[in-house]
Amino acid sequence: MLAPVAWRTPPRHYGPWELVTSLLTEGLVARGVDVTLFATLDSVTTAELRGTSPHGYAEDPARDGRIAEALHVSNVLAHSADFDLVHNQLDWLPLAFSQHCAIPMVTTIHGFSGAEILPAYRQGRSAYVAISNSDRSPELDYIATIHHGIDLEALPFNAFPGAGLVAFGRIHPDKGTAEAIRIARAAGRKLVLCGIVQDERYFAEQVQPHVDGDRVQFLGSVGPEQRAEVLGSAAVLLHPIAFDEPFGLSVVEAFGCGTPVVAYRRGSMAEVIDDGVTGFAVPGFAEAVAAVDKAVDLDRAGVRKRAEERFGVDTMVESYLRVYRQLIDSRTN
Amino acid sequence: MLAPVAWRTPPRHYGPWELVTSLLTEGLVARGVDVTLFATLDSVTTAELRGTSPHGYAEDPARDGRIAEALHVSNVLAHSADFDLVHNQLDWLPLAFSQHCAIPMVTTIHGFSGAEILPAYRQGRSAYVAISNSDRSPELDYIATIHHGIDLEALPFNAFPGAGLVAFGRIHPDKGTAEAIRIARAAGRKLVLCGIVQDERYFAEQVQPHVDGDRVQFLGSVGPEQRAEVLGSAAVLLHPIAFDEPFGLSVVEAFGCGTPVVAYRRGSMAEVIDDGVTGFAVPGFAEAVAAVDKAVDLDRAGVRKRAEERFGVDTMVESYLRVYRQLIDSRTN
Repeated sequence: MLAPVAWRTPPRHYGPWELVTSLLTEGLVARGVDVTLFATLDSVTTAELRGTSPHGYAEDPARDGRIAEALHVSNVLAHSADFDLVHNQLDWLPLAFSQHCAIPMVTTIHGFSGAEILPAYRQGRSAYVAISNSDRSPELDYIATIHHGIDLEALPFNAFPGAGLVAFGRIHPDKGTAEAIRIARAAGRKLVLCGIVQDERYFAEQVQPHVDGDRVQFLGSVGPEQRAEVLGSAAVLLHPIAFDEPFGLSVVEAFGCGTPVVAYRRGSMAEVIDDGVTGFAVPGFAEAVAAVDKAVDLDRAGVRKRAEERFGVDTMVESYLRVYRQLIDSRTN
Repeated sequence: MLAPVAWRTPPRHYGPWELVTSLLTEGLVARGVDVTLFATLDSVTTAELRGTSPHGYAEDPARDGRIAEALHVSNVLAHSADFDLVHNQLDWLPLAFSQHCAIPMVTTIHGFSGAEILPAYRQGRSAYVAISNSDRSPELDYIATIHHGIDLEALPFNAFPGAGLVAFGRIHPDKGTAEAIRIARAAGRKLVLCGIVQDERYFAEQVQPHVDGDRVQFLGSVGPEQRAEVLGSAAVLLHPIAFDEPFGLSVVEAFGCGTPVVAYRRGSMAEVIDDGVTGFAVPGFAEAVAAVDKAVDLDRAGVRKRAEERFGVDTMVESYLRVYRQLIDSRTN
């Protein structure tokens, strides 16, 4: 299991790729699969842990991320002959060097940073897993689409939320933080904002001026422990994204707590949200404001139930096991 | 020969790493060495040419340079077993993946972009060549220091220059373009500026306002054909750098034309300039202004002669051949 090394696996706070990698790894080990996790050396896992980075480069300003990633990937490939399969969770660099991989590789594409990144995917010797059908590139062949799973035990159902709304994710124009503030105000509800500040200027100009600690609260980065509490105690999660988000982990995490979602209908949102059951994927501002009260009226137990049916970590682990078997069978046959 | 793929080898205009790579490659082929040049596929060489990039990524905004470099490096390493030696001219990425190189590697370190890049060098399975003694890192072992060589035929001696000065290199604070303007003005001489604009804001704010087409001329990027004419017709090359430049190819190219140099005494300048023979390496502005007239009085034939003795391409090629033999002998013994 080739994890990214931007953050620890699992991450202390932010780090969705590392979080999904951790959930899958632990799920595989629990099923008796012999997994070696190549990740930062401060990672926490029941698998065998190996790596070259003492800790995440995003947590150490003295570290050059490009070099940390290259040393990490080179190390995994150099030991690839000891394994049956490499599962690459680290974007394009292992693909560019995939001719040095002695065994089959499968890559989960966590999203494309841009079209100029496709050449590494087109020539990569790897099977590809999409994290949503909406994120599939027509230029690539995929072995499967596997939605991310969540740890349903760590995200318990909350039948008695407050009346306020929550927006969860990096503070960045892509995530629509300022748009969420406008929607909450128009809907006449309080809003709690959570997430690392990724765009300092956007935060200072368009978010911070509205933070008053009452109508709009800003909690900053919220780690795994607080996540269930913050998501579960909200009436609705607002997710008015301004980009084609490939999956949206916080949306599904909200479902786990029984919290419905009002999102802008871009990227994977129409695929992830069951309209009228777990929330509403709407085209714009006015529809979002109108959808808030409708979402509050949804059956929260039904939201949780749908999360269990579609987005449990077991579902994800079993889907990946099918992919692994298919790849290993096609090699030995 | 693993060339960089930012530019063609040799470059059309700017591209000092690709230029040196080309001079060495052609010199080796002329001596009967069987060289395969891995470079952009529009490169021009008498060696066998192979590669993965149709042209330099710096010449194509649609191309992601990180991916172009990774695919290129992976391809070279995948074919390394066909050769006796890999000569890496492409910085740290081949070092990070050097455990996938089947044969000895030697790396010319064209300069360190920063201290955070050293981990890739420390663990690289490669011999290292410094391009000046001043650029040696105390943390690394080196097999040799080899100064860059220049094509003395393409840089003919000019005994009858004008009275004006020239500054040659990227337009960037590091290169001291604005400082050269101040020195020329204080010395009462005209100045010609040549180079690609690498820092747009610096150019707009500190360079362009002084360009009047008379006292200060700006020629932009000057390709190989014009280089000898521009350098040779100057009375003195100004090189008031604001960083520890590891070599300074334009300084030595000026010597080839018989043009002495007044430089700030940083990085390799005291090592490259023979004080009182090929120019003056001075501590600051006042000394530079005073040194201009002294440099004009130097014997230009003596400058050319010293270039032939120290910086001819043959000297460089023979030095590298000694390094190659040493590496191959130490492997077979």
